[in-house]
Amino acid sequence: MNNFIAYNPTKLHFGSGVVNDLGINASQLGKHALLVYGGGSVLRNGSYSDTLKQLEEQGIGVTEISGIKPNPAVDDVKEAVKTGQEAGVDMVVAVGGASVIDSAKIIAICIPDDCDAWKVMTGKHEPSGALPIIAVLTLAATGTEMNAIAVLQNHETREKIGFKNDLLYPAHSFLDPTYTLSVPSNYTAFGTVDLIAHSLEAWFGEGDASLSDRFVVSIIREALEYGPALMNDTGNYDLRARIMWAATNALNNLTIYGRSSGDWGVHALGHVLSFLYDTPHGATLSILYPAWMKVMKMRAKNRIEQLGLELFGKSDVDETIKEFKAYFSLLGSPVKCADAGIDASHRNEILELMNKNHAEGIHHKLSDPEREELLTYVF
Amino acid sequence: MNNFIAYNPTKLHFGSGVVNDLGINASQLGKHALLVYGGGSVLRNGSYSDTLKQLEEQGIGVTEISGIKPNPAVDDVKEAVKTGQEAGVDMVVAVGGASVIDSAKIIAICIPDDCDAWKVMTGKHEPSGALPIIAVLTLAATGTEMNAIAVLQNHETREKIGFKNDLLYPAHSFLDPTYTLSVPSNYTAFGTVDLIAHSLEAWFGEGDASLSDRFVVSIIREALEYGPALMNDTGNYDLRARIMWAATNALNNLTIYGRSSGDWGVHALGHVLSFLYDTPHGATLSILYPAWMKVMKMRAKNRIEQLGLELFGKSDVDETIKEFKAYFSLLGSPVKCADAGIDASHRNEILELMNKNHAEGIHHKLSDPEREELLTYVF
Repeated sequence: MNNFIAYNPTKLHFGSGVVNDLGINASQLGKHALLVYGGGSVLRNGSYSDTLKQLEEQGIGVTEISGIKPNPAVDDVKEAVKTGQEAGVDMVVAVGGASVIDSAKIIAICIPDDCDAWKVMTGKHEPSGALPIIAVLTLAATGTEMNAIAVLQNHETREKIGFKNDLLYPAHSFLDPTYTLSVPSNYTAFGTVDLIAHSLEAWFGEGDASLSDRFVVSIIREALEYGPALMNDTGNYDLRARIMWAATNALNNLTIYGRSSGDWGVHALGHVLSFLYDTPHGATLSILYPAWMKVMKMRAKNRIEQLGLELFGKSDVDETIKEFKAYFSLLGSPVKCADAGIDASHRNEILELMNKNHAEGIHHKLSDPEREELLTYVF
Repeated sequence: MNNFIAYNPTKLHFGSGVVNDLGINASQLGKHALLVYGGGSVLRNGSYSDTLKQLEEQGIGVTEISGIKPNPAVDDVKEAVKTGQEAGVDMVVAVGGASVIDSAKIIAICIPDDCDAWKVMTGKHEPSGALPIIAVLTLAATGTEMNAIAVLQNHETREKIGFKNDLLYPAHSFLDPTYTLSVPSNYTAFGTVDLIAHSLEAWFGEGDASLSDRFVVSIIREALEYGPALMNDTGNYDLRARIMWAATNALNNLTIYGRSSGDWGVHALGHVLSFLYDTPHGATLSILYPAWMKVMKMRAKNRIEQLGLELFGKSDVDETIKEFKAYFSLLGSPVKCADAGIDASHRNEILELMNKNHAEGIHHKLSDPEREELLTYVF
């Protein structure tokens, strides 16, 4: 076991109706909220109006920023920072999925620091503090509601990258599975893929951490057991709740304690597809993870065998890869680029950007030839 | 799944040498520490001198309270509160096992509130705040280093009870397995029993929480796998580390999310034995848990079957009870009262105090006749 610090200060409120406690908690953090959200779904599922009502009932001022896109862009964040500064907000309330919450996290840093958002993302500006962040999650997927990570993309530099800093932990997160009942099938599947991929990134990281390994297996088993059931019954509160809580735990640090790092190679590769073709994050992961395991079948043989034995009762590497592919297909998430509308004519363009961005991972670093090999498995 | 709040603000530093970061963190919390510890072991294992050095190097004033007993008494806490108040301390640093840390937690409440410690324990005084608490753990067992619980006993009222309040979370906890290398075999065994018992209290609690169930199984599996190896090699850092981290997770809230409560009946029964005969906490649990399961073999049949299947690959209730008893015996922890030096002549005295103290649990509440039945299994 490596040395580590276990720490996660977010207070996460889970269950039906928990947003009723948002106002009172927000009133202890500030007087004027920047309310950040994306498009129409939060208007339809009630989360936007419930949150607004909570803030207004406490006499908290509200300035709104809408239109945050999936695969969020740093330019939108910069705009929001300006708006927030002009309005004099003292906290950021995000209502939506990861794109909205991740944007809100960087906004919360840049408003008081008056700094460039991309310099924060690239580590060129050391944040001195952040406004308090409150998240109302409407899509189970990335775990951003209980971690210190934000992912943004920059169209100018052609990058999609992640940034981690303790200042990014939301002070409060509100997870009412009710808001996710209307998430369409494809995004429901992508969210489930994402939570599995996060668990796998921990599993394939560096370090011998047996309890963290068991937690990884526990979380993936939740997804294996309840994911397909949810696809057949997307309006089921109980199934939504189980997947939502599993997704939080897949990336709230729990699976990383005792390791020096996760791997994150597949995420780095996936970000390239999202950047180039706006492919949903979860879809990139179901395409790329089985292919990555194939590339790693010798280098990470023992780990794939151990995982297969735990999850599927068989240790053969090819069988395990087949099981993951079959599961992702069962959910309806793509396992080939063609399934996501990306045809083979794009192969060189993809490889070029993957190489340029050094999409390689932390532990099992991918080489250029390995990236080339990997792409043969997804077309 | 029940609604819940997931929250744990403790920053836990884990690994070899982590106490080197204590001073700098303490200096951000206060200027004068009440340093609380027990007897000789912390003087021998280096934790006391390392901690003192850290505080002194930062110019932090130190007032010492030593002699906290295993099964800590409220009278000692009251004395320490007076000493701390007179010295004008502004934080509490605990070096030791659960008895020391639990005492420190209540001391931290009573110093600023100038209140009666037993009134806090019994809920008759609502705490208004607490001094910051820093814990240096030297015994893997109760999880107090990352939870908001304290257990104390009162010789006057003949009670040993627990108290829970968010103010009791340590601000920082330092877990260096090195300090536990010299823990004697019996207390090493009791600590491992304790972490299993905490996991079981969650398992037998109220509510359908599948991920929390999997975490319970994960934690118990760590103990099943590494506990016996550790008994044969108590100076092994790696095994100490695995058991220590498992013990933290067994009672840091992780296993309770989605349930309305744990059960805690066996703990309540065990506290009676500790109170009457100073029996170590873990020893009371290895005696009583198998007997409790026997009493519950019809009422909690499904849960015992499910647990047995997960842990031992067999669902038969009697087989599962046998497995737990065999495992506790393998560790060298008592499974009968006689093993702990309590002979049958004490049976009535025990039953009387168990009944008087309503030692029953929260979910599967024990009746008087069930307590009587249970005692037939331990003599």
